[in-house]
Amino acid sequence: MIIVMKTEASKESVKKLREQLKQKGIIVNVWEGHKYCVLGLLGDTSSINPSQIEANQEVEKVLHVQEPYKKANRLFHPEETIVSVRDRLIGGDKLAIIAGPCSVESEEQIIGIAEKIKKSGANFLRGGAFKPRTSPYSFQGLKEEGLEILKAAREKTGLPIVTEIMSPNLVERFVEDVDVIQVGARNMQNFDLLKELGKTKKPILLKRGLSATIEELLMSAEYIMAGGNENVILCERGIRTFETYTRNTLDLSAVPVIKKLSHLPVIIDPSHAGGMWWLVEPLAKAAIAVGADGLMIEVHNDPVNAKSDGAQSLKPERFDSLMETLRGVAEAVDKEL
Amino acid sequence: MIIVMKTEASKESVKKLREQLKQKGIIVNVWEGHKYCVLGLLGDTSSINPSQIEANQEVEKVLHVQEPYKKANRLFHPEETIVSVRDRLIGGDKLAIIAGPCSVESEEQIIGIAEKIKKSGANFLRGGAFKPRTSPYSFQGLKEEGLEILKAAREKTGLPIVTEIMSPNLVERFVEDVDVIQVGARNMQNFDLLKELGKTKKPILLKRGLSATIEELLMSAEYIMAGGNENVILCERGIRTFETYTRNTLDLSAVPVIKKLSHLPVIIDPSHAGGMWWLVEPLAKAAIAVGADGLMIEVHNDPVNAKSDGAQSLKPERFDSLMETLRGVAEAVDKEL
Amino acid sequence: MIIVMKTEASKESVKKLREQLKQKGIIVNVWEGHKYCVLGLLGDTSSINPSQIEANQEVEKVLHVQEPYKKANRLFHPEETIVSVRDRLIGGDKLAIIAGPCSVESEEQIIGIAEKIKKSGANFLRGGAFKPRTSPYSFQGLKEEGLEILKAAREKTGLPIVTEIMSPNLVERFVEDVDVIQVGARNMQNFDLLKELGKTKKPILLKRGLSATIEELLMSAEYIMAGGNENVILCERGIRTFETYTRNTLDLSAVPVIKKLSHLPVIIDPSHAGGMWWLVEPLAKAAIAVGADGLMIEVHNDPVNAKSDGAQSLKPERFDSLMETLRGVAEAVDKEL
Amino acid sequence: MIIVMKTEASKESVKKLREQLKQKGIIVNVWEGHKYCVLGLLGDTSSINPSQIEANQEVEKVLHVQEPYKKANRLFHPEETIVSVRDRLIGGDKLAIIAGPCSVESEEQIIGIAEKIKKSGANFLRGGAFKPRTSPYSFQGLKEEGLEILKAAREKTGLPIVTEIMSPNLVERFVEDVDVIQVGARNMQNFDLLKELGKTKKPILLKRGLSATIEELLMSAEYIMAGGNENVILCERGIRTFETYTRNTLDLSAVPVIKKLSHLPVIIDPSHAGGMWWLVEPLAKAAIAVGADGLMIEVHNDPVNAKSDGAQSLKPERFDSLMETLRGVAEAVDKEL
Repeated sequence: MIIVMKTEASKESVKKLREQLKQKGIIVNVWEGHKYCVLGLLGDTSSINPSQIEANQEVEKVLHVQEPYKKANRLFHPEETIVSVRDRLIGGDKLAIIAGPCSVESEEQIIGIAEKIKKSGANFLRGGAFKPRTSPYSFQGLKEEGLEILKAAREKTGLPIVTEIMSPNLVERFVEDVDVIQVGARNMQNFDLLKELGKTKKPILLKRGLSATIEELLMSAEYIMAGGNENVILCERGIRTFETYTRNTLDLSAVPVIKKLSHLPVIIDPSHAGGMWWLVEPLAKAAIAVGADGLMIEVHNDPVNAKSDGAQSLKPERFDSLMETLRGVAEAVDKEL
Repeated sequence: MIIVMKTEASKESVKKLREQLKQKGIIVNVWEGHKYCVLGLLGDTSSINPSQIEANQEVEKVLHVQEPYKKANRLFHPEETIVSVRDRLIGGDKLAIIAGPCSVESEEQIIGIAEKIKKSGANFLRGGAFKPRTSPYSFQGLKEEGLEILKAAREKTGLPIVTEIMSPNLVERFVEDVDVIQVGARNMQNFDLLKELGKTKKPILLKRGLSATIEELLMSAEYIMAGGNENVILCERGIRTFETYTRNTLDLSAVPVIKKLSHLPVIIDPSHAGGMWWLVEPLAKAAIAVGADGLMIEVHNDPVNAKSDGAQSLKPERFDSLMETLRGVAEAVDKEL
Repeated sequence: MIIVMKTEASKESVKKLREQLKQKGIIVNVWEGHKYCVLGLLGDTSSINPSQIEANQEVEKVLHVQEPYKKANRLFHPEETIVSVRDRLIGGDKLAIIAGPCSVESEEQIIGIAEKIKKSGANFLRGGAFKPRTSPYSFQGLKEEGLEILKAAREKTGLPIVTEIMSPNLVERFVEDVDVIQVGARNMQNFDLLKELGKTKKPILLKRGLSATIEELLMSAEYIMAGGNENVILCERGIRTFETYTRNTLDLSAVPVIKKLSHLPVIIDPSHAGGMWWLVEPLAKAAIAVGADGLMIEVHNDPVNAKSDGAQSLKPERFDSLMETLRGVAEAVDKEL
Repeated sequence: MIIVMKTEASKESVKKLREQLKQKGIIVNVWEGHKYCVLGLLGDTSSINPSQIEANQEVEKVLHVQEPYKKANRLFHPEETIVSVRDRLIGGDKLAIIAGPCSVESEEQIIGIAEKIKKSGANFLRGGAFKPRTSPYSFQGLKEEGLEILKAAREKTGLPIVTEIMSPNLVERFVEDVDVIQVGARNMQNFDLLKELGKTKKPILLKRGLSATIEELLMSAEYIMAGGNENVILCERGIRTFETYTRNTLDLSAVPVIKKLSHLPVIIDPSHAGGMWWLVEPLAKAAIAVGADGLMIEVHNDPVNAKSDGAQSLKPERFDSLMETLRGVAEAVDKEL
């Protein structure tokens, strides 16, 4: 941590601040510039609250040398994390393809889709039982019944199931029923939920919030990991920008950046990013090319009657041909599909 | 709702879509343009899911004529809403001044601050007991103990208390203990929480999410109101933009825009918006000038030792002089301070 | 164009507006909703100024059915545009690889780099002679001398040259000297410059502005095309968002979106987007996978001594190995490298 | 400037970098942390190109202690700059009120408006002769004829005239004809134009670009000042964000931030920020309350027939009543209107 003092800061106040820091076991290097005095801090600065330092009216600003996350940090954990989900892995050479409808609507629907996507090569089934919807008047999901339907589909196809949790009250139920618990973009900083998930050992699929920086995403992963659960998979699904033609702006640079900063696997959701079915194929190809560990794709048997997100869902036939076109790209970057 | 068909859409598919809509009781006007065919929908379009329409591959886009919120909409509720909190009102001519520390730290601290801000003219006391923090390693609040301390301060000063809730599990406790329940920016779309709050009659202070549009903020208010609780107060506290000098970018235009679209009161939090104590005074003045119904301001007895947000907290003396300078601006816009 | 009247709009004012529009040869469909009256306009609405309509105090809002650009619009020009540059093409199956240093620094440097990138498979040489720099104290380019050096490199290697123009005064000189004239992100809406370029027949490489929507980028292309020059190549190079880890956020969705809306070729600049050399490879792969018509990549013989943008430049050897890894991806999407 | 080395950086490479820097006359402090080695640089670091440092593959990142602008920096110029324009001042206690139509349309129109706004208390006349328009098919301004009309209006009313320049070719003409030369948001980084304006002594009204940070705005001011012209007035006119209800998001925090960082006067343009006439009044009040040195407001005699920006223009009568309501706010913040 580096503290830049104000030009007019007195020697007295620099000395006082230095003493305070020393008492916390920090070594302080002082460096007097022409207009600024700068303090370089060495030692365990995690006990220092930067906002307290900035509240000192003689301090100009605080600069950070180290990232604030530890367990999620590649610096302290250089090897890649590969998360086990039943008999499969997320991370490593084999791409995770998570497909299925936005919402679970009926057992017939889910089993029908699950069988088709499995045949096309998907290795996980997604489907929302509890749905976060912008409008209180929109379909809110089949809830517990939806979980039962997903379990039936897993039974039938062997595909592990991925579904979203919205409330800390449901953690126990989800741990029992599902294989990967998804935390949606809107709940990325629902810290009470993250803490509860940290107490489990379930794989958690953590989606980046609409306006979350990569650092904030990693800090939310840190919440789960700090609780003892290191099975975290990150997901980039588009961020909010000024461009409104697409639903969100897919930030594919986030993949190599996260790979540099962290050891956690990262997948891409091209369906939510673009918000339109015809964008899924080019974005899915790009996601694999950029180095993602997998994809999460919305597939619906009848998009024009889907209870949610119909505009961005692929029909099973189109998903099948998408998988075909993805194979070449996967091969080009030494990934297995 | 207006549906723009693709240039190449067949007459057949237009006819089919029209029939579907008619079956839902919608009157459909068809206008044939040179390159586009446009369908204008009349009647109760709330039963139509736009994403289903957009999933139709012959549809180019869907345009919205009406806002998606009803109870929060000024169109259906032209008179201003004024929310009662104990013996006080939020909305109307009298400005609501909510002040206090970011976090509740001790009874002595809170009572000390509460007495001072009351003397300076604040009419509500704020203080965080449950704290949403970006880092799992930061101070997370005194929790239940914090609520007790706030109650003691209310007892002593008569100031109604405002504090943030983070989990649906705590709604019952908050309803009993506090006067205004705050929903923080990170939980603006925590729909499970909003639904629980909609079942109560408590005043809810709903903060705008970091990347929430005004429409989304009003949709979150709609969640609470649709449940039966119309005591909603909105709060603009800065949005996330590319500018990083300030913590967030305070969107003061949101005040007149919300006043046009909705009947709910709206207040401003200049402390979180700017993130630096010296920005509070100019932003507070501007907030009153632009027409806000109140302010929420962080005041701390000892900012350099504050457990959170010290950099943006005012000392009680500075808050006192701020209140003095605000009086002239309030008068100029016919508000009472 | 669709006009939504205010709820309280009088029949009189609707009638008056309708008459005005009729006089401009517009057919007006009126459609009376429960709360709103809506006017659907048919005919050549390009003569209507939407801001004038919105200035009518009885108008709620104006919705647009058609895109405002014509010559750049795929609707009126369904086949792909392929731009000829000397003996090469941009657009179509063969990828355009434009490589070279950010700034032209010396003849030796440029010829050295040009020979190497040519050998690695680049088909165009880039290099800045006139440099737009944020700081007046930074290197501003070799200017005319830089153009001469680029010409020498073209002479030596046969690679067509691409370089940036900053002022309408230099159009004549650039037309004579260079093969593709680049308009930088900061000048995307320098309309005087665009108009001058519209009078020439030179291929123009138009970069998207840092906060330009796709529609605005196409409108800037329209400026050039409306003047008579249809040789426009678009370039996505990252947009400005709240994420600050990368220099900009590369918007790869823009490629399929532009391909849908327009017939113009579009290339990607991964160097400026990420701002760091180690991001170039993954982003370049993703760009090809998503369907771009080419790449623009900064290559410098000695990045740590580059006069500009050293941090994002590749050394020639790294560029050579990048080209190798790109071949597989290009093949997977049926492009020739 | 502070250089953070990569964890794996060798002692050798640190030593080498240190030597290079020493040869430039820089004193280098080295602090060895647990995981990072940090170099603190003292002396005139303006000769160092941070991009070169970052191109060093053993460097993690570069942090900046000092702002990159000098002449615009309050640190080196603590007293406020007040710009003289004919017999008036911009900056200081008296507010500058610049009013007039978006575009100059006719002599009769301009003189009519000028007389009315003068009576209401405006002290400068604005009007666009050369218009930057997103569409090539929109009205582009009366050009030279527009300048003549503005001069006639000045002659008649004594109001100094403010108008926008778009091309370096016109600098000489503008210097002769107008009183304040406006650089529009889209040209904020048209560096060739800025350099030409730096050679004159005319007051320059520099508008913040749509996605320009405050630092970039000050760097553009620095371009003009570095050339020798210190008569720069800054203007905040709304930035581009994800919120689309308003045309732009007015960043009023920019006023106190600029006042802290720089000594230049700063005014607000509420018309372009909001894009709708009914937002002008609340935003104008807020602008004065936040501490702006003036306002730029669009006034048109007949908004529904205005050739541009009708939706955001006030009629003269409304401008007159606006001025009345502003007086109280101005008084409350000790400004003269």
